[in-house]
Amino acid sequence: MLATIMYGRKDVRIESVPDAAIVEPTDAVVRVTRACICGSDLWPYNLKDASDTGQSMGHEAIGIIEAVGADVQTLKVGDLVIMPFAYSDGTCPFCREHLQTACVTGGFFGNNGLNGAQAEALRIPLADGTLFPIGVGPDDALMPSLLTLSDVMGTGHHAAVVSRVTPGVTASVIGDGAVGLCGVIAAKRLGAERIIMLGRHPDRLQLAREFGATDIVSERGEEGIARVRELTGGFGAHAILECVGTDQAVATAVGIARAGGAIGRVGVPHYDTVPSARPLFYRNITVGGGPAPVRAYIEELLPDILEGRINPGRVFDRTVDLNGVPDGYRAMDDREAIKVMVKP
Amino acid sequence: MLATIMYGRKDVRIESVPDAAIVEPTDAVVRVTRACICGSDLWPYNLKDASDTGQSMGHEAIGIIEAVGADVQTLKVGDLVIMPFAYSDGTCPFCREHLQTACVTGGFFGNNGLNGAQAEALRIPLADGTLFPIGVGPDDALMPSLLTLSDVMGTGHHAAVVSRVTPGVTASVIGDGAVGLCGVIAAKRLGAERIIMLGRHPDRLQLAREFGATDIVSERGEEGIARVRELTGGFGAHAILECVGTDQAVATAVGIARAGGAIGRVGVPHYDTVPSARPLFYRNITVGGGPAPVRAYIEELLPDILEGRINPGRVFDRTVDLNGVPDGYRAMDDREAIKVMVKP
Repeated sequence: MLATIMYGRKDVRIESVPDAAIVEPTDAVVRVTRACICGSDLWPYNLKDASDTGQSMGHEAIGIIEAVGADVQTLKVGDLVIMPFAYSDGTCPFCREHLQTACVTGGFFGNNGLNGAQAEALRIPLADGTLFPIGVGPDDALMPSLLTLSDVMGTGHHAAVVSRVTPGVTASVIGDGAVGLCGVIAAKRLGAERIIMLGRHPDRLQLAREFGATDIVSERGEEGIARVRELTGGFGAHAILECVGTDQAVATAVGIARAGGAIGRVGVPHYDTVPSARPLFYRNITVGGGPAPVRAYIEELLPDILEGRINPGRVFDRTVDLNGVPDGYRAMDDREAIKVMVKP
Repeated sequence: MLATIMYGRKDVRIESVPDAAIVEPTDAVVRVTRACICGSDLWPYNLKDASDTGQSMGHEAIGIIEAVGADVQTLKVGDLVIMPFAYSDGTCPFCREHLQTACVTGGFFGNNGLNGAQAEALRIPLADGTLFPIGVGPDDALMPSLLTLSDVMGTGHHAAVVSRVTPGVTASVIGDGAVGLCGVIAAKRLGAERIIMLGRHPDRLQLAREFGATDIVSERGEEGIARVRELTGGFGAHAILECVGTDQAVATAVGIARAGGAIGRVGVPHYDTVPSARPLFYRNITVGGGPAPVRAYIEELLPDILEGRINPGRVFDRTVDLNGVPDGYRAMDDREAIKVMVKP
């Protein structure tokens, strides 16, 4: 079968790999009907050292179950399922607390010999705990939005939850990528009265407005901080959704947070320490976040998609087949595309 | 009148200063009946550069109102009041949200020309918003516990609230000073099933046990972290009350926090950045805290003191008059005393 392998910076290849197969009795094999390229895939796309073995890519998918191991109990061949970006057993203390990304036996796709989802098929460990069956057909028009439940919509929601968006607050979203845009949807959905989007790409900002952003700030650094403070009577925003992961983004988050507010970090951190320990302290600002337990959030978000109240699938503005994946990476990296869907 | 002035490291003097007096119509003057020395006072006691003008010390007191300005509406001469360590107007957006330590017009005692509370009397700005009248006599046996509502009990409670102590969780308290000991009371009061105290002073640890600590860890650094993990099935504690303020204490907090857990920082930070931004992220650990809004917490904690359910006043193990204050600093710094009460 074909799969996407990254060998180094800007070196993404579609290669023939051994077919996905059941290894453990708790596994399933999923034939991918939709996958996508993640903003976080652009980090290795720009930074990965050259390697001979390469890295299997992709952690977001919808697909049809093609085989199940002997111990799989809740799923059957032919089921259409959402695959969250982390696999999890569903039974450990963390899974029971709805933090599946800390699952004791779980992990992340594309690592430890597992192939990624930008492929024709993939092996799913701990299938009962990991996969979420959805009762629609594989060609349903809702497919793009349902696909966002495997990562970006759940991740934007996590940022909104951790930054404590509640009705009436002012939220601020840092980053106009697909996660930031989903963060706007999530903040509006949780009742934010005002949503200030920090970003610089006109097409994305237009979508942010359509999703519910009330204000746009395109200045960066100290200027951006000053602008958000000006928009908020000098106080800053209650809830900061940090959807980038750079040290500048985190410094901005601290700078625009209102005293007593909260920062929800969901951008994969490319920094070692959280800055401004004293200002954060003296202003009683909380910093939280991490890999979103999207498996837990599917249940909450799914009805809003099925009933048309939210449409996060609009973040996909390009669709490619597997052979188009390398160019899809390039298009996202060049900011030509917001998010690229893959139909193998 | 007499007041405590710190001129530099280990240089605390009792001096005659101008009598406290009404300056603004919203002021009150309070005659101090009880004050105390704070663990945070030991930072300048060990680090302050020598100065000719000195720093007026003390931010915790109970006293009797001696005079009120023309605009004071809710207080009258003769009222016995608790003075929280920060003054606040009670009407700004932050005060209305119960975060009086971020009050727009508020501040901290001992700064900006205000004298401190280790004195015969002091001027209280914004008296209506700041002072909390209590309906007991000035010699009531509950006075030590009521005095802790001006800082340490409210601060320990803040650490427990921010670190999200709820019934059944495992809490861990870093620091066996008065705030840490009050943190044990607070964690137990909010329902922690297990309370692991990290500290090294036998007298304090004994009191911690009496307050509700179920386990004691006296190892430090990596050994202390390993010990807490061992006590918690390898997972760490849900709620970490960081009551020290050093970089080592914060590193320990990160090391012993369970995935999905929360760290409540109330130790005044003597570090610039929060370490381990990536482990905190990958384990979805939240870091919050700051100066406790003790004014807001008095209402919640007072009944438990009046009705004898908690007795935080036990942290006071020495009482001095004003002339005894310099030796009180020495005794706390030498760890001879946990917390020193001052009866001017």
